Amino acid sequence: MAKKERTAIEPTRSVNYPEWYQQVVKAADLAENSEVRGCMVIKPWGYTIWENIQRNLDDMFKETGHVNAYFPLFIPKSYFEKEAEHVKGFAKECAVVTHTRLEDDGKGGLKPGGALTEELVVRPTSETIIGASFSKWVNSYRDLPLLINQWANVVRWEMRTRLFLRTTEFLWQEGHTVHATEAEAQEETEKMLGVYAKFAEKFLAIPVIQGKKSEAEKFPGAVSTYSIEAMMQDRKALQAGTSHFLGQNFAKASNIKFQSSEGVEELAWTTSWGVSTRLIGALIMAHSDDNGLVLPPKIAPAHIVIIPIIRKEEQREMVESFVNKLALELRQQYYYGRKLVVNVDNRDMAGGEKVWQWIKKGVPIRLEIGPRDIENGTVFMGRRNLAPRDKKSVAAEEFVTTATTLLDEIQQNIFDKALAFQKANSVEIDGKEEFYRYFTPENKDNPEIHGGFAYSHWCGSGECEEKIKNDLKVTIRNIPFESKEETGKCIYCGKPSSKRVIFSKAY
Amino acid sequence: MAKKERTAIEPTRSVNYPEWYQQVVKAADLAENSEVRGCMVIKPWGYTIWENIQRNLDDMFKETGHVNAYFPLFIPKSYFEKEAEHVKGFAKECAVVTHTRLEDDGKGGLKPGGALTEELVVRPTSETIIGASFSKWVNSYRDLPLLINQWANVVRWEMRTRLFLRTTEFLWQEGHTVHATEAEAQEETEKMLGVYAKFAEKFLAIPVIQGKKSEAEKFPGAVSTYSIEAMMQDRKALQAGTSHFLGQNFAKASNIKFQSSEGVEELAWTTSWGVSTRLIGALIMAHSDDNGLVLPPKIAPAHIVIIPIIRKEEQREMVESFVNKLALELRQQYYYGRKLVVNVDNRDMAGGEKVWQWIKKGVPIRLEIGPRDIENGTVFMGRRNLAPRDKKSVAAEEFVTTATTLLDEIQQNIFDKALAFQKANSVEIDGKEEFYRYFTPENKDNPEIHGGFAYSHWCGSGECEEKIKNDLKVTIRNIPFESKEETGKCIYCGKPSSKRVIFSKAY
Repeated sequence: MAKKERTAIEPTRSVNYPEWYQQVVKAADLAENSEVRGCMVIKPWGYTIWENIQRNLDDMFKETGHVNAYFPLFIPKSYFEKEAEHVKGFAKECAVVTHTRLEDDGKGGLKPGGALTEELVVRPTSETIIGASFSKWVNSYRDLPLLINQWANVVRWEMRTRLFLRTTEFLWQEGHTVHATEAEAQEETEKMLGVYAKFAEKFLAIPVIQGKKSEAEKFPGAVSTYSIEAMMQDRKALQAGTSHFLGQNFAKASNIKFQSSEGVEELAWTTSWGVSTRLIGALIMAHSDDNGLVLPPKIAPAHIVIIPIIRKEEQREMVESFVNKLALELRQQYYYGRKLVVNVDNRDMAGGEKVWQWIKKGVPIRLEIGPRDIENGTVFMGRRNLAPRDKKSVAAEEFVTTATTLLDEIQQNIFDKALAFQKANSVEIDGKEEFYRYFTPENKDNPEIHGGFAYSHWCGSGECEEKIKNDLKVTIRNIPFESKEETGKCIYCGKPSSKRVIFSKAY
Repeated sequence: MAKKERTAIEPTRSVNYPEWYQQVVKAADLAENSEVRGCMVIKPWGYTIWENIQRNLDDMFKETGHVNAYFPLFIPKSYFEKEAEHVKGFAKECAVVTHTRLEDDGKGGLKPGGALTEELVVRPTSETIIGASFSKWVNSYRDLPLLINQWANVVRWEMRTRLFLRTTEFLWQEGHTVHATEAEAQEETEKMLGVYAKFAEKFLAIPVIQGKKSEAEKFPGAVSTYSIEAMMQDRKALQAGTSHFLGQNFAKASNIKFQSSEGVEELAWTTSWGVSTRLIGALIMAHSDDNGLVLPPKIAPAHIVIIPIIRKEEQREMVESFVNKLALELRQQYYYGRKLVVNVDNRDMAGGEKVWQWIKKGVPIRLEIGPRDIENGTVFMGRRNLAPRDKKSVAAEEFVTTATTLLDEIQQNIFDKALAFQKANSVEIDGKEEFYRYFTPENKDNPEIHGGFAYSHWCGSGECEEKIKNDLKVTIRNIPFESKEETGKCIYCGKPSSKRVIFSKAY
């Protein structure tokens, strides 16, 4: 048996997946918990990933005709109450502002003062507050479609939180659109789901499955919800984005009406869709390994890090001037609209320690360059998606001319690996017993590792769905668009079913 | 007497300046009030201006070595209380979260539930919450300087609000930095003020005066505050950005300490600095005229609008194909890092109406193109910073090759005009009587229009400052860096003074 190599992250994925996740976040310096319950601090390396997500997604929104706007953080309680399902879904977990100042409590401290006559809810999502504006903006069919997006912070008072995956405050974008017809709103809902899928696959290198949510799992107040579902390395599903067809529910609640081209007053049709900083959690869990973060080049805060290897002080000038010149040449190149970001790590610290720091931070390409490399006109290159010791010497000139091609190759490799993993852990299951066995952890000490995605038949009843959930903590992730019509039997009750759905444990 | 031309905005600036402002905002479709007291909705045209401000400022922050991060929206009351001056400054106007859910009130409505043991304040500014993280991040002199910026929303419960200028919630950036020495922190404070001044002048085309605030006007908790002050067209000052040298006050409150290179534990020195959506208010009031918004090209949501003039349906194809080709050529060009934004207005609406809409929205260049122009190979061009009727025919080819030069020229013209206005309404005043007369409105029906900036001597006493404020509503805007040492007498008490300061009414 080969000796087990020591890894940078302890525990490893196979030993304790949830703890491995926390340690990867910490080692890459992405975020930390604040003392405010459930609210995280997104540190510069993590925030830059978010900026790269924002920039690329925003471009895609604008290409599809959307514009950004900004709506109030606070929602009057009465707005919230207008859509019954909606308020039911969010009332249990919202921050409520009741006062407008702090005043002397007579004991040397402060107490709330200036009580509001109507409490304000810190937005958990903005359908109702945006609806209030839309009802003013939309008057005629000429005002439609109205295609708006907002980048914002939202708050949902979560009991159990986890960095990026579930936090009380998180950052997100929420698209809100208004249409004249049901068909157009439905088309928009699916189009934006497609944008999310494309973004997840092309930029985050995460393969996703597009589909429709079951009734039980849909957004409070929506007619139907669609999601993209990704498989994490513990084989659980993570819902990476949702798009909601809201029908006329919110138009009714907010009174969004328009005069049709025939001069008739009609209720509008609306959609909403969002992705959040949760995507960073997905990114971490889809690609990272036991040495830390692995970043797809397209959203990495830095593409390349150069570590000058200087053993004697008299070599410094020569090495640094070579390295700076190389960095400059690389930084003139563009990679997907961004100039190549090349960090030169000149810190006064052992080279090996630096290398491991950058491995843990997930930078796609590392170059170590010392006097001998310079003599030979080469760079010593490591790729984050290969083993740490799997490094090779490359002609410096060749590296400069092929850097972006290499980044593309790395991006593709990362995606391919994730896709292979997803395929390897997805099965069609038709027997109930097999289904139950599939979701039983192999190892009771590490209950996180279980089957994966089961493509099974489902009769459509909420009862069967509920029972499976209670028995196994397994839910229907979505009814995939790619699911073909076929004759089958519900995995739980045996009643007829025409389509397979994805069953899985989930975040 | 020439007949007065009708203007697009009523009332005009000279008739009622505050109302003119509201009407410009409305006509340009920049923002509107929401039903949430004091919270505005930033509409797409206004938000795009903010995006352009963000992008350019963010580049400048990054060029000066800063990185972005994100900290919690909520600040525990106890953090707030740590810096005595700070809490005094903000306690009177903050939104307080006291509950974490809404629950059935037994009367068919909802009431707050899940009371918090410690109330949370929605951040009015983030020194204390960021300080809590910094105290963990900073351990050694090697961790310094720490140069962080945050783009975020903040809330200050204002009693009287005005779109962009003063709103309960607003968007801003707040820089927060930590340094090993007083000198470095002081240097950073002034450097970032300089960045703001450069941004205001080069991008917003607003001339500003850099200087130090008086004790009475400084940020709660700061050792000293610096500001850039701009003159609006009613000759009032608008504080467009501030930079604070916080000394060790917040380091003490948050326990930000580091081990020096000599191995001694020391308290750190911090700074903070910010600009907000208020800049959009400054932009409007500095440049707009009685026909609406005037936008400097560098931050305009669109640089050029093309209005096809089609009188007969059979001309449509020819005109549209010419216009689309022209737009495409223009859109390939870059203007300060952005591709030229060219709107083609194909709406089914009278050409004149379109022209006036775009004038009110402030687009720098308008092109009207009809069959005759196409025949002649020309475009009919209007510039927003000239009179609406001051249009001319230009060879289409020439227009394409000179468009960005023309935009630069417009940018410069707008700045020059604002600078000339500021100069024309700034005077050195040495007599108390003259000073009082200067700040007395010429016309009692329009008290907004008064003198302007008075450069006068001040003895440095808060008492004199206070008395002038009470008498005239005039405050010391700042003590300009450019103010030379000279012998003078305080404008109020006659005591010796060595420097002139700027007195002005202000927003």
